[in-house]
Amino acid sequence: MKRNVLIIGAGGVAQVVAHKCAQHNDRLGDLHIASRTRAKCEAIIASVHEKNAMKVPGTFAAHAVDAMDSAAVAALIRETGAQIVINVGSAFVNMTVLEACIETGAAYLDTAIHEDPEKICETPPWYGNYEWQRRDRCKAAGVTAILGIGFDPGVVNAYARVAEGMLDKITSIDIVDINAGSHGKWFATNFDPEINFREFTGTVYSWQNGGWQTNKMFEVGQTWDLPVVGEQKAYLTGHDEVHSLSARYKDADVRFWMGFGDHYINVFTVLKNLGLLSEQPVKTAEGQEVIPLKVVKAVLPDPASLAPNYIGKTCIGDVVKGVKDGQPAEVFIYNVADHKEAFEEVGSQGISYTAGVPPVTAALLIADGTWDVGTMVNVEELDPKPFINLLNTMGLPSRIKDAQGDRPLDF
Amino acid sequence: MKRNVLIIGAGGVAQVVAHKCAQHNDRLGDLHIASRTRAKCEAIIASVHEKNAMKVPGTFAAHAVDAMDSAAVAALIRETGAQIVINVGSAFVNMTVLEACIETGAAYLDTAIHEDPEKICETPPWYGNYEWQRRDRCKAAGVTAILGIGFDPGVVNAYARVAEGMLDKITSIDIVDINAGSHGKWFATNFDPEINFREFTGTVYSWQNGGWQTNKMFEVGQTWDLPVVGEQKAYLTGHDEVHSLSARYKDADVRFWMGFGDHYINVFTVLKNLGLLSEQPVKTAEGQEVIPLKVVKAVLPDPASLAPNYIGKTCIGDVVKGVKDGQPAEVFIYNVADHKEAFEEVGSQGISYTAGVPPVTAALLIADGTWDVGTMVNVEELDPKPFINLLNTMGLPSRIKDAQGDRPLDF
Repeated sequence: MKRNVLIIGAGGVAQVVAHKCAQHNDRLGDLHIASRTRAKCEAIIASVHEKNAMKVPGTFAAHAVDAMDSAAVAALIRETGAQIVINVGSAFVNMTVLEACIETGAAYLDTAIHEDPEKICETPPWYGNYEWQRRDRCKAAGVTAILGIGFDPGVVNAYARVAEGMLDKITSIDIVDINAGSHGKWFATNFDPEINFREFTGTVYSWQNGGWQTNKMFEVGQTWDLPVVGEQKAYLTGHDEVHSLSARYKDADVRFWMGFGDHYINVFTVLKNLGLLSEQPVKTAEGQEVIPLKVVKAVLPDPASLAPNYIGKTCIGDVVKGVKDGQPAEVFIYNVADHKEAFEEVGSQGISYTAGVPPVTAALLIADGTWDVGTMVNVEELDPKPFINLLNTMGLPSRIKDAQGDRPLDF
Repeated sequence: MKRNVLIIGAGGVAQVVAHKCAQHNDRLGDLHIASRTRAKCEAIIASVHEKNAMKVPGTFAAHAVDAMDSAAVAALIRETGAQIVINVGSAFVNMTVLEACIETGAAYLDTAIHEDPEKICETPPWYGNYEWQRRDRCKAAGVTAILGIGFDPGVVNAYARVAEGMLDKITSIDIVDINAGSHGKWFATNFDPEINFREFTGTVYSWQNGGWQTNKMFEVGQTWDLPVVGEQKAYLTGHDEVHSLSARYKDADVRFWMGFGDHYINVFTVLKNLGLLSEQPVKTAEGQEVIPLKVVKAVLPDPASLAPNYIGKTCIGDVVKGVKDGQPAEVFIYNVADHKEAFEEVGSQGISYTAGVPPVTAALLIADGTWDVGTMVNVEELDPKPFINLLNTMGLPSRIKDAQGDRPLDF
């Protein structure tokens, strides 16, 4: 049983987290949001009040913090009395925020794997490089740390666990992420361009035939025919959840597929081949040291600015194949989200919405004790049923499609 | 009659100029080369000696100079005793170098129009913005200043003047620049990427129907069937020579066409649409101010590095239409250059070669008095015959193709 939430970060996902926390502040208690730039936090709180999102009168306060400074984050946790920290800041700050939680005993949630700004695509499994090295200390301190509890990773890990309960044996898990929406810009990324491109410049790791397979980005493509969004081309992509699901489902193939249009691939290919996605500094003729990727980020539209005009839908889910009663069986467990509905509710587009609702749902399960497990876990280690049920009521309804048809998923 | 040459700049074109001056130092006298970085000048001189390019024993000295500092350039002109300055530095230094020539009485040659680093594509005619404003002062001081004496602008202006002598009336001049060579890199520009891209990001000005017409880059394309290089797609492009030829040939259409492959256009379009070709600074998330175009330049291959592996040919010339003896008439006057031959002779690729040989040819005509006109001129104002004849012997032979066939051009 925990109360009072500190949100770290003030981007598009933080906006969703803030609105969703406000909608449930009767159960979450005081709300706080902190980022490097306090004004961004204040703007998010203003948008919460504009929508009258606070369920009951209560505290929602903005703070400035350097999240790379663990002691500063710990001090803020103590000052605010937060027992739950939802970290939706840059992926570079995960470990300093986690350390602050271990020090103070607060529960920790994040939505993406930790990254070192100077490294791209480290050795698999990625969770072994930073997060799992702190698992024993979380357990010893009784700290609940739920890793990667966005949509993907996050809800899709829970979907795998649901499928585990339905099949006698799992032979493959293919996570497919399709954004069939349109933002109307010539080119834009749906979240921080720096993180977005970093995902695709390194080796694509997948878990197949009991080991790590490596490919290049856009080397392996497959057309998927999915509910609502229809036929969509997706490409084998390196992604966080493959690095934890492969530990639990060692005998299954675990792959992640992300949908891309030809236009995105062309822009990405040009930038990558020219060296403009590099995180290593170059020197201009005038002698200025510059990291090209940071300049690309600077010229691209702010992902948050896309929300007002974003239309269309996303479809993200798990195609799980295996054996049931001695026969081959297949299930597809998924969610469809709508960009415009997301914007109308919380002022963010659908990609931010699908990433921001799950950690608040998990925070509610920590607040009521259901998921307050006192150790570090990936989502597939937790009972998925209360989570799926609560998500159904919070704007991200799950569905299942199998031999019996296509229907809502609940327990 | 003038002697002793000071070369300003140390890029690919300067390399060609240095070698060609050395090959004719019996007539040009002492040779000097200066740029911001003295080591670059020394490397060029070393390559001259490596090829034993000096026709007779003599001086070839390297100097460091800030060519944006007119007084420093004037001091260097006096120190070296140079009576001819070949300016093949950045297009940003033209006016400061010209001022130094006016002050010292040295003859001035350049190969590209002056540019202000902070402005792209100013009001036409471009020569009116900087160069022609100093015409009266050149005349008063008796200073010979030959503007734009590379290949295009430069030789192509002389070709227009040749055609003027062949036709009774000119109705159109289409300058076509095709590089059918291959550098083997995924993408590279043939000269300074900053200048290269700046040429194409602004308005495309052409002179048609007695006035300035405006288009966007890659808006108007046409396939040309040329000698040696065959059928090639070229696009209406803004270029220096249109801005002087339109003054002499007011009643003719004057257009410039540059050949581009689909790959170049795609890369250019991506960079331009994302804002990466902007000369205006952007601020990164970390607060660093950066000019995107300078970062693009920093990641692209150094044009000089392309030379050793460059193969294939260029074809640049003037399609001139008009009337002769009451009948419609057309001539094509052109040169074909070979990248590999250029590299073997002077250590530069063909684009640099075609730009660097003409100013040395003109310097020889100033040295012997033929073109030492004591005022500021564009190339079409000069007698083209001695120039074409001398170019024929210096590695850039001209040809003419008309109703009488395809044959060498000489006088």
